[in-house]
Amino acid sequence: MSLTNETHTPSLRSWVESANVCNADFPIQNLPFGRYRFVGSDEGFKIGVAIGDQILDLHGAGLIDSHDMNALMALDAGERLHLRRAISQGLAHGSSKQQAWSKLVTPQCESEMAVPCQIGDYTDFYTGIHHATSVGKLFRPDLPLMPNYKWVPIGYHGRASSIRVSGQTFRRPQGQTKAPDAAQPSFGSSRRVDYELELGYFVGRGNELGQPVSIEGAEDHFFGVTLLNDWSARDIQAWEYQPLGPFLSKNFASTISPWLVTTEALAPFRAPFVRPDCDPQPLPYLDSEFNRKAGVLDITLEVLVQTQRMAESGIAPERLTLGGARTAAYWTAAQLIAHHTVNGCNLQSGDLLGSGTLSGPVQNEAGSLLELTEGGKKPIRLTSGEQRTFLEDGDTLILRGWCERPGATRIGLGEARGTVLPHEV
Amino acid sequence: MSLTNETHTPSLRSWVESANVCNADFPIQNLPFGRYRFVGSDEGFKIGVAIGDQILDLHGAGLIDSHDMNALMALDAGERLHLRRAISQGLAHGSSKQQAWSKLVTPQCESEMAVPCQIGDYTDFYTGIHHATSVGKLFRPDLPLMPNYKWVPIGYHGRASSIRVSGQTFRRPQGQTKAPDAAQPSFGSSRRVDYELELGYFVGRGNELGQPVSIEGAEDHFFGVTLLNDWSARDIQAWEYQPLGPFLSKNFASTISPWLVTTEALAPFRAPFVRPDCDPQPLPYLDSEFNRKAGVLDITLEVLVQTQRMAESGIAPERLTLGGARTAAYWTAAQLIAHHTVNGCNLQSGDLLGSGTLSGPVQNEAGSLLELTEGGKKPIRLTSGEQRTFLEDGDTLILRGWCERPGATRIGLGEARGTVLPHEV
Repeated sequence: MSLTNETHTPSLRSWVESANVCNADFPIQNLPFGRYRFVGSDEGFKIGVAIGDQILDLHGAGLIDSHDMNALMALDAGERLHLRRAISQGLAHGSSKQQAWSKLVTPQCESEMAVPCQIGDYTDFYTGIHHATSVGKLFRPDLPLMPNYKWVPIGYHGRASSIRVSGQTFRRPQGQTKAPDAAQPSFGSSRRVDYELELGYFVGRGNELGQPVSIEGAEDHFFGVTLLNDWSARDIQAWEYQPLGPFLSKNFASTISPWLVTTEALAPFRAPFVRPDCDPQPLPYLDSEFNRKAGVLDITLEVLVQTQRMAESGIAPERLTLGGARTAAYWTAAQLIAHHTVNGCNLQSGDLLGSGTLSGPVQNEAGSLLELTEGGKKPIRLTSGEQRTFLEDGDTLILRGWCERPGATRIGLGEARGTVLPHEV
Repeated sequence: MSLTNETHTPSLRSWVESANVCNADFPIQNLPFGRYRFVGSDEGFKIGVAIGDQILDLHGAGLIDSHDMNALMALDAGERLHLRRAISQGLAHGSSKQQAWSKLVTPQCESEMAVPCQIGDYTDFYTGIHHATSVGKLFRPDLPLMPNYKWVPIGYHGRASSIRVSGQTFRRPQGQTKAPDAAQPSFGSSRRVDYELELGYFVGRGNELGQPVSIEGAEDHFFGVTLLNDWSARDIQAWEYQPLGPFLSKNFASTISPWLVTTEALAPFRAPFVRPDCDPQPLPYLDSEFNRKAGVLDITLEVLVQTQRMAESGIAPERLTLGGARTAAYWTAAQLIAHHTVNGCNLQSGDLLGSGTLSGPVQNEAGSLLELTEGGKKPIRLTSGEQRTFLEDGDTLILRGWCERPGATRIGLGEARGTVLPHEV
């Protein structure tokens, strides 16, 4: 796998001028894929590439022959790079395609986005070791980190049907909860709705049932990333999760960003995978030279909140967390793919793997309110004068992510925005 | 919901003579749906109805206008009954359709079956209280049944991509395991591959995200049942399952029977849902008059094994278990649907809900080897002279199920058959 090529040249500029703005999420070095249509249209969704504040119609440009994102994601590495080069060349300043393609771009602000592909199966991992430790302390003070954690990339199956794209709103879930001192559970709206800051890793090419993907081959099955908010109802979770794991506390909603930022775009932002000497080294099926050298994604992640009162008063969203995937994740995407398939399980093009909550090592890098408020015991104060332990009705959460590094052009992941509605709307 | 109608008349016979044989799985009172094609064909799969040892082509008969089983499953109760009546009348002895339809039937032995519908999401529940208690004792001697068990229909998300139809073969999975006294885990083939005897409940009509299905309405979303073998690697499970539940120990393979036996066919085999007085009664969202009166399915379940040596020596499969869903399941299908959606989670047509292992209250009704051998400590002896703690390479497991009751015609669920292959084939 080659980490960079000419599509990353920092001097490369686009004839779409908004792509050349400093700190744009979608410069010509990014080129993420999404599905879009005009707002309010009842047409089918088309596959587009974000460029600046515009979207290029790939089918219109003759670069793909269907509107099936899963088929695009199943392309092999060579075909993917070929497509990326064609898009890059056509959007580059001075391209002969400019006249024709300028009729094929649509402003993002006039577009409605869909979930970018059909997600057959969704698996959520638990790679955030600081998160696992902090949450473990709350649920199991005697054993915060299970003995398997540093050996097994812990994961579980999630619900694909309730994944929606940025802009999702959902009703506060109802369910069973039980107070520690209550004799029996009660039923009602969750009072501990939380967010979880995650990355979503999308599977490109799948594997056949019974045919594991080796760690050496895993990067070829890794298509790209989105932001993922794994909304969680902590009170429902605490009562239901034993012995088979979280269920209704998670599956009422999950929000992803609409743009698939490809591994090709992320290539300049790779970092070495290093295990502390005091930790066990990965078993051979989870270890490769490439993974040690460049398995980690150096992505900065941010969470902001805007309460209903803030929105009504014109107060901008306020940052809750700023942290990095690089220091938060104990396992790489390639390790997750190798682990997931080592028993023969088949991944399919478009499957989504969640990273788990990517909390940093310090308190203000925590990726959930559960951690930021120490289980709801220490409310956080917002500059609006409000305070929060968990989310209240009308709260909007915004996840953002980006990559920057000397010598490379900054790229962004866009955002994943979602709003909690009252149970009775 | 009406429990029976004229399609259940015991005197009803078919012009397909094999349907009238005593103890046939597929008399005219059953009429389950499946997808089939000629063995070895590369045509698309068609929707058929099993009748005796034949399959009727529903599209050919002009009864449906597409080959999309999920669309058929999404029909409302009235449309479903209308379709069932048309099939029943056309297949009945003396029907005017006999001449035309006799050209549309294919022998099952010349057909290849597919998974009957697209399974978007698969959820596995844990309704077998005797199983939960026995297994709980092995994993957690101090707390076999969690405090939530009698309040919450415990469930977790499973893997849809690795579900295959009867006849499935799969390689013995590899993974991490850790002996209790070992300092660290090791990697290799599972030595504790097991089966789990379950029923699969298929979702008919779905619900919108954010719109729970009430227990009163849940039966309208319940399409029908299959047999389900939730193959499990116990040694992988024991090491990986905390804190988020089983993952690679389950997702390498799951086998279902190819025929969707509808709730209409099962109507005469309903039984009351009764909770022992000493147990908590279900919370209101899990309780309805219909569920109390007729929420339970009275299905007899059987597991047979045929080792490679038995197959080579012409020895017939040997029974491991004979039990009943009626006494094994602590929660009904309607309760699972109401619980799954109470937080707003959306079910989609074709989704599969596993019952969990349906072990009866006594030892020889256990639905897994884990229970039959008390965690591998007490091997079972087969009449071939072999013994088993867990499954060995070449072992074939066969699940069967049927309903019989005085005054009703016996119907069967067919079978779900699967074979463990060596890791290296």
